[in-house]
Amino acid sequence: MALIVQKYGGTSVGSIEKIRAVAERVIETSIQGNQMVIVLSAMAGQTDGLIKLANDITEDPDSRELDVLVSTGEQISVALFAMAVKTMGYDARSLLGFQVAIHTDHLFGKARIHDIETDRIIRNLDQGRIVTVAGFQGLDDHGDITTLGRGGSDTTAVALAAALKADVCEIFTDVNGVYTTDPNICPRAKKMDFISYEEMLEMASLGAKVLEIRSVEFAKKFDVPIHVRSTFTNERGTMVVAETKDMEKVAVSGVAYNKNEARVTIRKVPDQPGIASRIFDPVFRAGIVVDMIVQNTSQDGLTDLTFTVLKTDFYKTMKLVSDIAAEIGAERVLGDEDIAKVSIIGVGMRTHAGVAKTMFATLAKENINIMMISTSEIKISCLIEEKYTELAVRVLHKAFGLDDEKEKAS
Amino acid sequence: MALIVQKYGGTSVGSIEKIRAVAERVIETSIQGNQMVIVLSAMAGQTDGLIKLANDITEDPDSRELDVLVSTGEQISVALFAMAVKTMGYDARSLLGFQVAIHTDHLFGKARIHDIETDRIIRNLDQGRIVTVAGFQGLDDHGDITTLGRGGSDTTAVALAAALKADVCEIFTDVNGVYTTDPNICPRAKKMDFISYEEMLEMASLGAKVLEIRSVEFAKKFDVPIHVRSTFTNERGTMVVAETKDMEKVAVSGVAYNKNEARVTIRKVPDQPGIASRIFDPVFRAGIVVDMIVQNTSQDGLTDLTFTVLKTDFYKTMKLVSDIAAEIGAERVLGDEDIAKVSIIGVGMRTHAGVAKTMFATLAKENINIMMISTSEIKISCLIEEKYTELAVRVLHKAFGLDDEKEKAS
Repeated sequence: MALIVQKYGGTSVGSIEKIRAVAERVIETSIQGNQMVIVLSAMAGQTDGLIKLANDITEDPDSRELDVLVSTGEQISVALFAMAVKTMGYDARSLLGFQVAIHTDHLFGKARIHDIETDRIIRNLDQGRIVTVAGFQGLDDHGDITTLGRGGSDTTAVALAAALKADVCEIFTDVNGVYTTDPNICPRAKKMDFISYEEMLEMASLGAKVLEIRSVEFAKKFDVPIHVRSTFTNERGTMVVAETKDMEKVAVSGVAYNKNEARVTIRKVPDQPGIASRIFDPVFRAGIVVDMIVQNTSQDGLTDLTFTVLKTDFYKTMKLVSDIAAEIGAERVLGDEDIAKVSIIGVGMRTHAGVAKTMFATLAKENINIMMISTSEIKISCLIEEKYTELAVRVLHKAFGLDDEKEKAS
Repeated sequence: MALIVQKYGGTSVGSIEKIRAVAERVIETSIQGNQMVIVLSAMAGQTDGLIKLANDITEDPDSRELDVLVSTGEQISVALFAMAVKTMGYDARSLLGFQVAIHTDHLFGKARIHDIETDRIIRNLDQGRIVTVAGFQGLDDHGDITTLGRGGSDTTAVALAAALKADVCEIFTDVNGVYTTDPNICPRAKKMDFISYEEMLEMASLGAKVLEIRSVEFAKKFDVPIHVRSTFTNERGTMVVAETKDMEKVAVSGVAYNKNEARVTIRKVPDQPGIASRIFDPVFRAGIVVDMIVQNTSQDGLTDLTFTVLKTDFYKTMKLVSDIAAEIGAERVLGDEDIAKVSIIGVGMRTHAGVAKTMFATLAKENINIMMISTSEIKISCLIEEKYTELAVRVLHKAFGLDDEKEKAS
């Protein structure tokens, strides 16, 4: 008998029919002799509808009350799911964040889980019940409802799996698993059978939308195996697990891309101590997240500083930085929104030499200019012109031997 | 400085605009130096929408999960209201049933309040906040969400007022107060300034829809003055209070009617000990509520038994009773749906003689036949043909001196 935590997202429970289908699927696994804890998101569209109600009141709703409001979405899902299971003749029980209890910090809208009580869940499981837990929500130590932020139900599921020492945490979604790259732009992308937590983290932070980053961090920290699989088939998906020796045999596991960033360059900055902090302090203070930063060695006491931010923060950043550039006597500020970041990822990079060389040569061969480079232990990212994104992904995917050799239906 | 509990119903908070209007009204009373606790129902239509979702899953949804589901309606109202108040520059805080906490028994869908903790509300009031509490919901001692049944928000408000020793509990609704009778059928109906708990209970149980019966019982038990008033004007409404000497000066305070009942008569029942329980046991066991019961003295060992039930239970009752009638050898069963009950109510009846005589004479003068009579200490009800209802109400209203003498715009 295994203890399985499953999470179903908003599209998987997006209608009464779909909730019924999930109930059937869960019961099937349950009667094979497994204990089941089911984490649900709000029905697709519900959270946006609730946020719209709040925005009809005010552009800037109180964050505590917004959490009270949006947490009703998951409450509705678990109640309907438990009803569906009971109607099919099996026992079920819904539990909300405060009932479990899932303890978090006080950061409304983006709370972090501190710890999870397991007594009530275990008691219900021992009584033969299918337990369904509202995702995305918790309780802080003032007794206030908190939410974990977008994608928070993934985190709820993984955290529950860790606390319950579950055998596996299955994340059901509308894709079959994690692919070597986006199948929409590279038809030869392959579903991976396994991927390490570290690689998954890089993939997620680079724009792959399969799993929420924090849930992967949680899984890594507590060594919870995650099975990413499709709601609509019974196929095996991708296991996200701790790194194994086998994984290092492959230099590159996947290719990712991100078109959501924009580039800001400050030309001819006087190269003095403290200049970087003078530039970035107001940017950070405005809550803008900076991704890549490159500073060239200086020439004649002047240097160029380039960095990337999310496209949504681009105009705000340009305004802030232009003011500072004038103050510090830099020559000028340039901005570019037509850029993309392509990245190769793999724990095998640590032991395989020449990975960077292959990446640069492959892009060069297609006349794709590299504007910026940033590396981590298991990742190399290059900033390129946006129009080359798809081409770059395809040639890199092939160059690192990731292409699926099986013929596919077009 | 007064402590005021206010309750607004579903139509009063039925849209974002209305929630804003309620917030403005509450702030106005607050800045006059009052501490405010605001109980809200779900936005009009929301509860029915949630119940429909449940019924799309199953005709007979699990009662525990149904409470988890429908309690989201009030949760949404209080969150939006608190946001609205904060946007207007005043401090507010929403509290759900489990946060207050409002402790109830385990009867999902019709739970009764056991006790209410007041610490958290008082702490928030002392910090200068307007506190808004989700109506209709509580928490049982298993930590499960319960609801109090339809109209339960009235009960929440009165129970909170009792627990907090509030100066007054104001119930805001879409009418101006409690009238001597239904103004829709008697244009000379007057708004009462005061009514006793006992009279209000009779009025409510006889079909006046202003207040939920259980909330009046609660108010009576804990001597909480209720002010029934309109959401849409600033006029004084009706105070529901303990009986005073003054109230007894008036023999009859109001006239009520109820068209929702049907009559069942069993002819020639063998008059033996135990026969009534043999007839009513299966009726009660089927959850059917019996209102008036009349049994005539027997003749030749046979008696007639007549009683009334809700129209919605009529066919079920006829079927049950027909089976029993055959078993016990009664002659036959008659049913009549075209009946109505008119009642006069007043604590003054206790001290005024001849009230019944006036009632019967008034109806007789209009040739209205009385089919059944039932009395309590402060009420006389007569069953009549349904078509005479409006006429009966108007002549009784006039006969007991209740007509408003002021000329009204038609």
